Amino acid sequence: MERPADPGASLARLPGKDPHNNPGDVSVDFPVSVVLPAGGTGERTGLQTPKQFCGLMGRPLISYTAQAFERVSWIQCVVVVVATESLALMRDIAQRYRHSKVRVVPGGSTRHRSIRRGVQALREPEEQVGAGTPKVVIIHDAVRPFVDEDMLSKIAMAAKEHGAAGAIRPLVSTVIATTSEGYLDHSLERAKYRASEMPQGFTYEVIHQAYQKCTDYDLDYGTECLHLALQYCGTNAKLIEGPPTLWKVTYKRDLAAAESIIKESLSQSSCVLTGDCPSALSLAASLQKAFTTQHMDLDIIPNLQGDHANYLLKEWNFIQISVNGSLSEVKALLASLQAAERALLNPVVVVWVHLSGADLPSIGETATEPAAISDLASP
Amino acid sequence: MERPADPGASLARLPGKDPHNNPGDVSVDFPVSVVLPAGGTGERTGLQTPKQFCGLMGRPLISYTAQAFERVSWIQCVVVVVATESLALMRDIAQRYRHSKVRVVPGGSTRHRSIRRGVQALREPEEQVGAGTPKVVIIHDAVRPFVDEDMLSKIAMAAKEHGAAGAIRPLVSTVIATTSEGYLDHSLERAKYRASEMPQGFTYEVIHQAYQKCTDYDLDYGTECLHLALQYCGTNAKLIEGPPTLWKVTYKRDLAAAESIIKESLSQSSCVLTGDCPSALSLAASLQKAFTTQHMDLDIIPNLQGDHANYLLKEWNFIQISVNGSLSEVKALLASLQAAERALLNPVVVVWVHLSGADLPSIGETATEPAAISDLASP
Ligand SMILES: [Mg+2]
Ligand SMILES: [Mg+2]
Repeated sequence: MERPADPGASLARLPGKDPHNNPGDVSVDFPVSVVLPAGGTGERTGLQTPKQFCGLMGRPLISYTAQAFERVSWIQCVVVVVATESLALMRDIAQRYRHSKVRVVPGGSTRHRSIRRGVQALREPEEQVGAGTPKVVIIHDAVRPFVDEDMLSKIAMAAKEHGAAGAIRPLVSTVIATTSEGYLDHSLERAKYRASEMPQGFTYEVIHQAYQKCTDYDLDYGTECLHLALQYCGTNAKLIEGPPTLWKVTYKRDLAAAESIIKESLSQSSCVLTGDCPSALSLAASLQKAFTTQHMDLDIIPNLQGDHANYLLKEWNFIQISVNGSLSEVKALLASLQAAERALLNPVVVVWVHLSGADLPSIGETATEPAAISDLASP
Repeated sequence: MERPADPGASLARLPGKDPHNNPGDVSVDFPVSVVLPAGGTGERTGLQTPKQFCGLMGRPLISYTAQAFERVSWIQCVVVVVATESLALMRDIAQRYRHSKVRVVPGGSTRHRSIRRGVQALREPEEQVGAGTPKVVIIHDAVRPFVDEDMLSKIAMAAKEHGAAGAIRPLVSTVIATTSEGYLDHSLERAKYRASEMPQGFTYEVIHQAYQKCTDYDLDYGTECLHLALQYCGTNAKLIEGPPTLWKVTYKRDLAAAESIIKESLSQSSCVLTGDCPSALSLAASLQKAFTTQHMDLDIIPNLQGDHANYLLKEWNFIQISVNGSLSEVKALLASLQAAERALLNPVVVVWVHLSGADLPSIGETATEPAAISDLASP
């Protein structure tokens, strides 16, 4: 995997990373909110639970998607539209995982009716977070958890400029037209067509007007918001090529695929705390070299004080190097992690490296440490 | 998951099951061979190894695909076409996993050139297994490991009748036409189009003629064999709706998805060996009831003698119930499994259930058993 020159850009793509100082912050300076239709029944997964509520490493898929939007500073509000029977479940998820930008509203009988309801909700005073009606509305799928700030920023900017914008991907299969008897009529020239994906963005004006003017037939059988914007507002959406991770979790196997992506991204970066001892610093430098050859990212900091405290909010893996044989540093780290409630979203891994050698002070508490460590781990 | 009335039909869909007595056997009474282009470099997975050679539970993906064809009795020969640099690797895989129907041939510079080479190879005496040139050639992708006999039989029959046949799936995304400036031009009416997938089938005549007549441009830039059959032979392929598991392993995440399917199907059925003791039979009946509520399949047999020996070839999970406290039955089972080389293709799980109670003979060897069992497990 290529490592970008600016590590900030890569952090923004990893689930659970806070994209501080991302270039996107500079450009999106208008209000943007999100509508996330999550009313699907998930019949294609072969599971009883609709897929947006299925657990990935114990946490519901929809919570990953909500978090992908919440960590973007310029997004104001995420309206999650669910079936009436899922209202309580979704409200519980929003509370449990502290989704402070999420508002849960009941949906309609079709996807379009649900999206329309979400768009309306952005005007209602009780649904507004901060500034009123947004300039741009981003519509996304609850079951595409890996959307990143870069893509959201491109969609929001293009929607503001052109009225509508949508993510596209190259076609993976040849598309063919069939005769009514089930024979090949012709195949489409793949290069001229694209798959329309999510996210899509609209100025509030365009999406509101499209849903005002469209017919009941559109609301019942239509699938494409981009098509409504074209037909009822004359807006030709700007199309933006998205990454393959935008794919939609559709089948049961996609849950395993999504979990493998989360696991991989969680393990790709780590933070090592060294204190001030030179031998710890030199060990950290060797570790960093080894991580780099594995295309993994290792940041070295002395401790979590001052500006370094933001590592608590963006990192899932911590390596505490101790040279004095005392548990105090790793105890302090664990206390900080608990205070920040990090483990709420993803598993946090803490590795304690105990450096000892002839030049280090002797260790008096060796025998009691294993018990002390399991005490620390138990909460 | 729905359980079909005929367990034979369900067995055929599971990896590693031999579909004895499948309805497909009756209808396909003409020679069919397979061309499996496997020359892809897999750049989209982000892995160094081309995806067809990536391990799923330790075994290369291509071996699962080859096995899916080999276990179908009416398929004669599977020509795997690989890049020159992969010839040795593929021959090694074919030998290691005992792919007796597989012939490995070097490919061309594009997918079409490789398929053409595979089709030609089916005529060459040294590539023929049994009967000469086949009536029908099935073309499939190395990276679609879950094709089942039912689908293969439908494709072969339709190809024989209509000259060409291909698997289709509903479109998962809306397909849109773009303007040259990157804006939405129009979206296609989803109901009129399908995604063209694999497998595809052709009479030898049609596919041979199509590759004789087509241009260098087709061979270099074309993607669809169905299109060549239409353009150069005037054959409108019959289209057959396939199951979602026909999807193509494309990205790294798809490897995790494929592995989850294999694990699930391996764990869906089991075979319990009871001997003759009534208490073992009654335990087996209770187990069977419990399995059924979990939509799992449990067959009860006394032992592996006579016709029951075929369980050795189609089952991956065995439960041996012993009531006499002796290791002899489970030892015999392990010896049979080793002789059949079952663990070559998938992990074999053997559970030994030791039934003891007041009405059973007393057990004299309890203390020595754990050691004896780990001895048995070590080979
Ligand atoms: Mg849409
Ligand atoms: Mg083709």
